[in-house]
Amino acid sequence: MKIGLIGYGTIGCGVAHLLLEKRKHQDLQLVKIADIDLERERDFMPERGLFTKDVQKIINDPQIDTVIELMGGIEPAKSYILSALTNGKDVVTANKALLSSCWKEIMEKADLHKRRIRFEASVGGGIPLLSAISSGLGANNIEAVYGIINGTTNYILTRMEKTKESFSDALAAAQKKGYAEADPSFDIDGIDTAHKLAILSSLCFGKTSAVSSIYTEGIRRITHFDISCAAELGYSIKLLGISRIDKDRLSIRVHPTMLKKEHLLSSVSDVYNAVYIKPDLTGPLLFFGKGAGRYPTASAVYSDLLALVRQEEFCIPETEAVEPVDITEITSKYYIRFQAEDKPGVLAMISGVLAEHNVSIASCIQKERGKTVPIIIITHEAKEGAISPALSKIDKSPFIKEESLKIRIEEV
Amino acid sequence: MKIGLIGYGTIGCGVAHLLLEKRKHQDLQLVKIADIDLERERDFMPERGLFTKDVQKIINDPQIDTVIELMGGIEPAKSYILSALTNGKDVVTANKALLSSCWKEIMEKADLHKRRIRFEASVGGGIPLLSAISSGLGANNIEAVYGIINGTTNYILTRMEKTKESFSDALAAAQKKGYAEADPSFDIDGIDTAHKLAILSSLCFGKTSAVSSIYTEGIRRITHFDISCAAELGYSIKLLGISRIDKDRLSIRVHPTMLKKEHLLSSVSDVYNAVYIKPDLTGPLLFFGKGAGRYPTASAVYSDLLALVRQEEFCIPETEAVEPVDITEITSKYYIRFQAEDKPGVLAMISGVLAEHNVSIASCIQKERGKTVPIIIITHEAKEGAISPALSKIDKSPFIKEESLKIRIEEV
Repeated sequence: MKIGLIGYGTIGCGVAHLLLEKRKHQDLQLVKIADIDLERERDFMPERGLFTKDVQKIINDPQIDTVIELMGGIEPAKSYILSALTNGKDVVTANKALLSSCWKEIMEKADLHKRRIRFEASVGGGIPLLSAISSGLGANNIEAVYGIINGTTNYILTRMEKTKESFSDALAAAQKKGYAEADPSFDIDGIDTAHKLAILSSLCFGKTSAVSSIYTEGIRRITHFDISCAAELGYSIKLLGISRIDKDRLSIRVHPTMLKKEHLLSSVSDVYNAVYIKPDLTGPLLFFGKGAGRYPTASAVYSDLLALVRQEEFCIPETEAVEPVDITEITSKYYIRFQAEDKPGVLAMISGVLAEHNVSIASCIQKERGKTVPIIIITHEAKEGAISPALSKIDKSPFIKEESLKIRIEEV
Repeated sequence: MKIGLIGYGTIGCGVAHLLLEKRKHQDLQLVKIADIDLERERDFMPERGLFTKDVQKIINDPQIDTVIELMGGIEPAKSYILSALTNGKDVVTANKALLSSCWKEIMEKADLHKRRIRFEASVGGGIPLLSAISSGLGANNIEAVYGIINGTTNYILTRMEKTKESFSDALAAAQKKGYAEADPSFDIDGIDTAHKLAILSSLCFGKTSAVSSIYTEGIRRITHFDISCAAELGYSIKLLGISRIDKDRLSIRVHPTMLKKEHLLSSVSDVYNAVYIKPDLTGPLLFFGKGAGRYPTASAVYSDLLALVRQEEFCIPETEAVEPVDITEITSKYYIRFQAEDKPGVLAMISGVLAEHNVSIASCIQKERGKTVPIIIITHEAKEGAISPALSKIDKSPFIKEESLKIRIEEV
């Protein structure tokens, strides 16, 4: 197999290092590397002759039969991948943004030209997850998938719990360690999780939604106070990607979630990822490991190359893009934090409005005394479509000093 | 693919149910089932014509190209599998006892006849574990594997922790629920774990040991007192299969192990299994799921059949059987429980003997007062070859009322 690599950043560098030095394999020949910036210093620099600034020299090279795309983003990565497939090359990519937004187009192009595309590195980094779903669970109908699939947010939440730091301090620490970008919104607003969830959904169910249709809520408003209240109540707070089949419809969403402390997902800390899957025959499975990083990701790319060499079939179900269950239709228990004046009548007002909307209260905690205090309400199962207008109404009360925060409590 | 199934017990019944009804697949045709007992009632009974009492009718049937062996045990399963391979049939088996004891012979026979053998169900039941190791981690050198791979013992230990029952009560409960056999020694003495560990070792390292050379210690002597002491110290107690490469030698053993509470393996409860692997590139991975049961195991068998149909390569490294590091050579921290007379001088005697053997004490707890009391010692890192003679000497003292118990504390 003659391989061309497009994109020589952190991961590309790791892949080249494996192919050319650390894990040489006679069937895996890296013959060309394209990147627009050949001046930047890298940890691993193979001989100059391998490099080109011109991607077309890979895409149009008839001796290259496999293209690895590691530049990321939609364009020009998309055009490169489509051209590579058209030119009869197999493709390995880690590009979750592209796969989640152009799944159908790419899969159809691959089918048309009888080419293969693999993307183990796009979800869960070094965890051999997608191949396990595709080839290890063939007898199963999968009912649900729950994933901690963004290391940055998991690091921030873990750090807030351990050090009692504020969200912004934990974010700053994550940035300093290189776990978060200078502009962190892609991670902390849940967008990266939504991309990966869309891909997982395609593989697990043959059903997915446009990323723009996935309800997505990040972790910016979670405070250390919420995390410690959750802990007292026996819960952890994790940013979860959730996708499941509810009466033949797809419920797919990304949001901070309270999970029972004893649940395995609660023990997944720092930058680690984990995906909890519910296939009907095997019962629940969990896959845990590093979701990012040079060598974990390069290991996943390498395993895709090996699978191509070995002619392994990657069973990608034909995927239908569906309109998901609207977030107002889901039911859940909720943790709600109000910031309210510490006056008689406030709790009566809150519980009155919740009752009006048919939301019943399981417990209520007001720990502090002062001018304004946090009030925590745990509800019984309620419809999101009932909770949201109730909270809007309560938030308009003069007793309430900031927008309330709700966190869904999931039985996973 | 025309399939013959040998052994129609719980798992065989599940496999037949999947192939003939629940998950029909045009390429997977179950054409014959052999079992010596055709009278026993089963939950799923296909048409009578499929059955035979004569295994040779499967092994010698030229139209059958794949044999599933689910009878278990060494003989006659071994002869059947070898004959099937000789007759040009691929084999799927869940037989861990056979694979762990006759690995080389079976693999060589498969090679000789250019046949394939798959055994996903032999370790970790429904968890797609072996295929993930074989095909998903191809770029990695694996450094260590730690497994909770026996559901019976994990159920008993979890139950003792939760209900404060004694070992024998928890065992009785496991037997009542069908999780333990009438003669439970195979599970509770760690033998089943050793079988599975030998297989894992072959796949992870290309090195394994004869089951008889694997140091194997079960859970019979663990008491609820030990579990609660461990919890207080921040540990859980799990029966672990451990195999790792130590300076090019194989350290392979099965014993109750104290693990930090925060470690993911500590959260694996009840009959669940989990395998924690340390590949060098991906960093640590964990695979969790049900290790036994009709449909989880049948799902694994089915995935092997699919892999055969899809011509997926199963990379089984050429395995060398080696003499493992002797248990006396390992170093570890230890939890030691003595049952001693509550008299001045006892602790001085114990710590004196430990000091003589170069074992230094990290902490010491004596909680109760009475005629005889448990004394708990936690040691610093020490060589097993030093600990064992020290304990033998201490146990000979007239102050000591029963054989001491040591539990290894592992940093996983």
